[in-house]
Amino acid sequence: MSTPLTLNPDRLFPADPTQRKLAREIFEVTKRHPIISPHGHVPPEWLALNTPFTDPTSMLLTPDHYTNRLLHAVGRVDLADLGVPVGSPLSPEKSRAAWRLFCKNWWTLRGTAVQGWFESEFVDVFDVHVRPSEETADEIYDHINALLKTEEFLPRSLYKRFNLAMMATTDDPVSDLRYHKQLLDDPTWEGYIPPTFRPDKYLEPATPDFKANVEALGQAADQDVSTYEGYVEAMRKRRLFFKEMGAVSSDHSHRDPGTARLPEARAAELYKLALAGKISPEDGAALRRHMLNDQARLACEDGLVMTFHPAVYRNHHQAAFERLGADVGGDVPMAVEFTNNVRPMLSEYGDNPNFQVVFFTIDQDVYQRELAPLAGYYPSVYVGAPWWFIDEPDAILRYREQVTPYGTFYKTSGMIDDTRAFASIPARHDVARRMDAVYLARLVAEHRLELDEALEVSEALVTTIPARAFRVDTSKLGGTTAK
Amino acid sequence: MSTPLTLNPDRLFPADPTQRKLAREIFEVTKRHPIISPHGHVPPEWLALNTPFTDPTSMLLTPDHYTNRLLHAVGRVDLADLGVPVGSPLSPEKSRAAWRLFCKNWWTLRGTAVQGWFESEFVDVFDVHVRPSEETADEIYDHINALLKTEEFLPRSLYKRFNLAMMATTDDPVSDLRYHKQLLDDPTWEGYIPPTFRPDKYLEPATPDFKANVEALGQAADQDVSTYEGYVEAMRKRRLFFKEMGAVSSDHSHRDPGTARLPEARAAELYKLALAGKISPEDGAALRRHMLNDQARLACEDGLVMTFHPAVYRNHHQAAFERLGADVGGDVPMAVEFTNNVRPMLSEYGDNPNFQVVFFTIDQDVYQRELAPLAGYYPSVYVGAPWWFIDEPDAILRYREQVTPYGTFYKTSGMIDDTRAFASIPARHDVARRMDAVYLARLVAEHRLELDEALEVSEALVTTIPARAFRVDTSKLGGTTAK
Amino acid sequence: MSTPLTLNPDRLFPADPTQRKLAREIFEVTKRHPIISPHGHVPPEWLALNTPFTDPTSMLLTPDHYTNRLLHAVGRVDLADLGVPVGSPLSPEKSRAAWRLFCKNWWTLRGTAVQGWFESEFVDVFDVHVRPSEETADEIYDHINALLKTEEFLPRSLYKRFNLAMMATTDDPVSDLRYHKQLLDDPTWEGYIPPTFRPDKYLEPATPDFKANVEALGQAADQDVSTYEGYVEAMRKRRLFFKEMGAVSSDHSHRDPGTARLPEARAAELYKLALAGKISPEDGAALRRHMLNDQARLACEDGLVMTFHPAVYRNHHQAAFERLGADVGGDVPMAVEFTNNVRPMLSEYGDNPNFQVVFFTIDQDVYQRELAPLAGYYPSVYVGAPWWFIDEPDAILRYREQVTPYGTFYKTSGMIDDTRAFASIPARHDVARRMDAVYLARLVAEHRLELDEALEVSEALVTTIPARAFRVDTSKLGGTTAK
Repeated sequence: MSTPLTLNPDRLFPADPTQRKLAREIFEVTKRHPIISPHGHVPPEWLALNTPFTDPTSMLLTPDHYTNRLLHAVGRVDLADLGVPVGSPLSPEKSRAAWRLFCKNWWTLRGTAVQGWFESEFVDVFDVHVRPSEETADEIYDHINALLKTEEFLPRSLYKRFNLAMMATTDDPVSDLRYHKQLLDDPTWEGYIPPTFRPDKYLEPATPDFKANVEALGQAADQDVSTYEGYVEAMRKRRLFFKEMGAVSSDHSHRDPGTARLPEARAAELYKLALAGKISPEDGAALRRHMLNDQARLACEDGLVMTFHPAVYRNHHQAAFERLGADVGGDVPMAVEFTNNVRPMLSEYGDNPNFQVVFFTIDQDVYQRELAPLAGYYPSVYVGAPWWFIDEPDAILRYREQVTPYGTFYKTSGMIDDTRAFASIPARHDVARRMDAVYLARLVAEHRLELDEALEVSEALVTTIPARAFRVDTSKLGGTTAK
Repeated sequence: MSTPLTLNPDRLFPADPTQRKLAREIFEVTKRHPIISPHGHVPPEWLALNTPFTDPTSMLLTPDHYTNRLLHAVGRVDLADLGVPVGSPLSPEKSRAAWRLFCKNWWTLRGTAVQGWFESEFVDVFDVHVRPSEETADEIYDHINALLKTEEFLPRSLYKRFNLAMMATTDDPVSDLRYHKQLLDDPTWEGYIPPTFRPDKYLEPATPDFKANVEALGQAADQDVSTYEGYVEAMRKRRLFFKEMGAVSSDHSHRDPGTARLPEARAAELYKLALAGKISPEDGAALRRHMLNDQARLACEDGLVMTFHPAVYRNHHQAAFERLGADVGGDVPMAVEFTNNVRPMLSEYGDNPNFQVVFFTIDQDVYQRELAPLAGYYPSVYVGAPWWFIDEPDAILRYREQVTPYGTFYKTSGMIDDTRAFASIPARHDVARRMDAVYLARLVAEHRLELDEALEVSEALVTTIPARAFRVDTSKLGGTTAK
Repeated sequence: MSTPLTLNPDRLFPADPTQRKLAREIFEVTKRHPIISPHGHVPPEWLALNTPFTDPTSMLLTPDHYTNRLLHAVGRVDLADLGVPVGSPLSPEKSRAAWRLFCKNWWTLRGTAVQGWFESEFVDVFDVHVRPSEETADEIYDHINALLKTEEFLPRSLYKRFNLAMMATTDDPVSDLRYHKQLLDDPTWEGYIPPTFRPDKYLEPATPDFKANVEALGQAADQDVSTYEGYVEAMRKRRLFFKEMGAVSSDHSHRDPGTARLPEARAAELYKLALAGKISPEDGAALRRHMLNDQARLACEDGLVMTFHPAVYRNHHQAAFERLGADVGGDVPMAVEFTNNVRPMLSEYGDNPNFQVVFFTIDQDVYQRELAPLAGYYPSVYVGAPWWFIDEPDAILRYREQVTPYGTFYKTSGMIDDTRAFASIPARHDVARRMDAVYLARLVAEHRLELDEALEVSEALVTTIPARAFRVDTSKLGGTTAK
């Protein structure tokens, strides 16, 4: 006996009839709009090569560490039994067994953000209408598996069906961006897939691989990197290459968002020490902050928008990291401080017309205390949408409630899905659009905003606001509103 | 002229009719269930000896530091006039005078959690139906005083009437647990009162009494404690003794939740220094963190669940502490950090199947930022219910809103009353059950959860969820659902 | 074509009909009450001299850094084009041009606190009924400009029309308070304008001007300040002078709220170093904390209520500070810690019947974690209303939700507008009163408080509660409830 799985058109809207009616009306404006996804982790080769997805598990489950970690935590499921890490061999039997584990533990996801996304995907994308359970696992698996063999479920078909206006990828500075090039050169491809410059590991001088990393960077840039000056020059060249290939932003994620500069001579000296493998962790952090400041300086030249995603303890569980590798879900956020940390950068570049930066946080304390005041003063600063552990309905609402009063709608980033779960992109943006409608509906219901104002804001939040925050080339945006 | 005191059956439910109706329906499921109280401070002798309560003040007011501190703060009432500290002589006149002070200042409690609990107790337990005031003080006092002389208000009668399935106490590791033994040996007693191992003072090497404390511990364990190894062995023995006496958990409360290990030799050396009274505060804290880590190691052996209640500045007001002693209300919470502090422990024992830990906090910032991510990754980690200054309706709601999305319902602890105010236990659990119903009702009303799912979750929150989090012996649970 | 601008009488009230009806009823009680404004920044000379306001921009826009910073941040408006800094020459053309910029960028304020205040001011004070825009800028400007030439819009007329019961100013300890004296001596003046003792710059020993500052202080006090003892004596005298002139409080704003004392000899020595310009920043902070503790000690003598506004990074944008001066909007809050920082002060003076302190914060984390527990224990401690970046409807609601359960209504400060935007005072208090009504309405709707209790609390929040928190001389309060 299976339970039906349905999607209520009013989902996430408040029960109060006045607010629900307004939320519907406001959501009506945005739900037709194409999705601007300026930061995410879908591999560009999926679109370049348009290879079919092989099976439900490796498409929907294995790469989705949001889901894996919950199954592991609550159901004590071994991550390896879900196919983790991505790329490990996944036989049809193992794929099906993983899927059964997922369905059997479906109840553990009750009330989570993950449940909401999957329900959307199942109903809207895969036409699944039964609730996952031990009993229905095979039925759902077979159904999706069959769909994946069809033309309609090829990556490019889904890109079109998802009504994506753009979808940025995240890339290593030494990458030759061959798949982006292939897409740019492909006359049959009409999408917009800009790369993103993600130089984190080249800004961590105290890590064991630092020397090898910067040497690879030097090689990619055809630039001697034996001095700090050369290192910066190599960065400049690679940023420009990315920019030429369509990049609109660089992305930065370190333990802290420090941006303090060192005296130039000191930076040069520490860089030498780092190459020699002799830099201390403290000096490594100091040099990294200087390097991050230099990324901002380069951004004033090339105009790439900077995005900051700081203060996550990566691979918190040492044993899992050693067994399964990085990024399998063992991330745990930490408190973060922006006011003092970003001051060196903003005092220097904060009103430079070429500079723009988007601050993301998982620590919600800083929205009203630090980020709204920064974005509500510096023309260059934007407040990023809730990310990772706060990418969920209530936190999105809190974000609007805490940023709007002194940071405004117009200094926010628009929705950022930041996902490698391709099929969840429409569901994630749907949630964000609904919650923005909920917030706006409340403002209207409480006579804090007129309806015409709310409708304009609503539309801007999925069009001009993300386009401006990420300096998107609007002439390249695709998708259609006539859906 | 007195004002009636009534309890609305819909209290704490939202005004919106859709949500209220759902909340009622969901609460209906849990309100009949017996109360699992796995952590609290009621003295076991009350149940073992079944001694009558002497008067309203010493039963309801003096031991309740939640109430005392508010009367002191707002009404400038001297704590001593409320009978503080517990155990000081309380003549009938003084008892009545204290009660009058309480009733006269009743209005100062408006809107507080304390008001809500007292209203429940007055109406439901003591059949009081007038609002406390200067005018009604004597009437209420006399009424309750008379009840306390009756069979129905003996501790064991109330235990049964409160429908307690279990009620853990909190005990010193050197205790012989005589009252627990007496209860276990009493064929007329059907309750379930497990002790809890609370070793805090034996983990604070920089305190003046440390040597005397560990010597007492050694004596209780019949174990030489002149070395660190011996100290750990004494702990192992006492934990096992508690386990044999029915304990399911050990409880830990220090300024920070640090769990970093020291090199063994360094720990041994610092322990010697501590016994000699020569350890510095910094080294004392370092050794304490090592000791706490060792408690986790022992927990992997004996399976006692660990509970952490960190980051409270105890006895903040030095003068009151000196005059009236510890725990009279001068506690003030502090910011807390878990991500880095508990990493040493979780990296070592986090996926040990025998290990389980419940993290409590008063600093709500960590629910979504740190605790939900930890509980949503490590199988061993649970998020404790709101405690002390956040044991109140709105904070309970925030807790669910912030933990559920990435920590799930299933990695929470169930309600913990943590109280020494025996008569308030039903009222406290009633509030928690109502607020869980309110949260679930919202999820259903907003089509984020189906009603059948919400009803299952609701029941689990007062049955299987606390039983699993605390490894309760379910065969011993008492109480009845047929109320 | 212009859009009408209207004020809905139910603005800020929740959509739910039950709660809205209750909120209306509760607000009805307070809306007629005169405004007690015990802390603000309106210059006393405006009232003493009763000089007409010259033009809309210099009255409403230039001194309002809340608004300026948003126009700068979102619209990239140059602050200088809005007349900043106050006092720079403002020709009629420049005034009108600034006003046009403001109206043209009106849409950027959607959903902000600033929009709400301006809408109130426009409709209620200036009889403006069209929405600001590029098209309506001149019309609105001309209309307001004409009003400002009339008797009704003189400062004293507005003071009366705003129904102010009192309005404190903020003053330098060396001030001769001539305008306050003029008002006290003026038989035609019936208002109540107490000065406030704001000694911040005399408590920052590591600043370059410290010596000059304390010498001026010494001169004002006719007191040798070459020793620390003399410095404290000068403070005592100036505080007494302020008290004689009607002051009820002293106001303190430093990076941290530290209050730790130094040994007396050490304080004396550091003071000497500071006068010699040789004190380090760390020692400067240590001496400042000692000095702040001494302000508390003096408060035990003279009874002035202390108010703390800590943890704001002033003039965050160095370049703007250098170009335009202090206080033009570049403030950014920081995390703050009270529990440990204020313990030295509260342990010494916390139950002194003559001592009273109000803690303000922008870091909302501390409301429930630290401030409610402090106010709910120490008779002397009050929790200040939301301030600066959290002076907005939702944060006011959060403040009530987080302070009430263990801090009570009765240990809060009442609304503090803290503004230099004179015309916005009624709007700001209106918002606070409405949000208090919203919170109380919810408590009543959820059967957590009876309506009669809520009505009493509501009235107390605008009468006895601020009067008690600030030790206001109630015999001097003006205004009328018969409006």
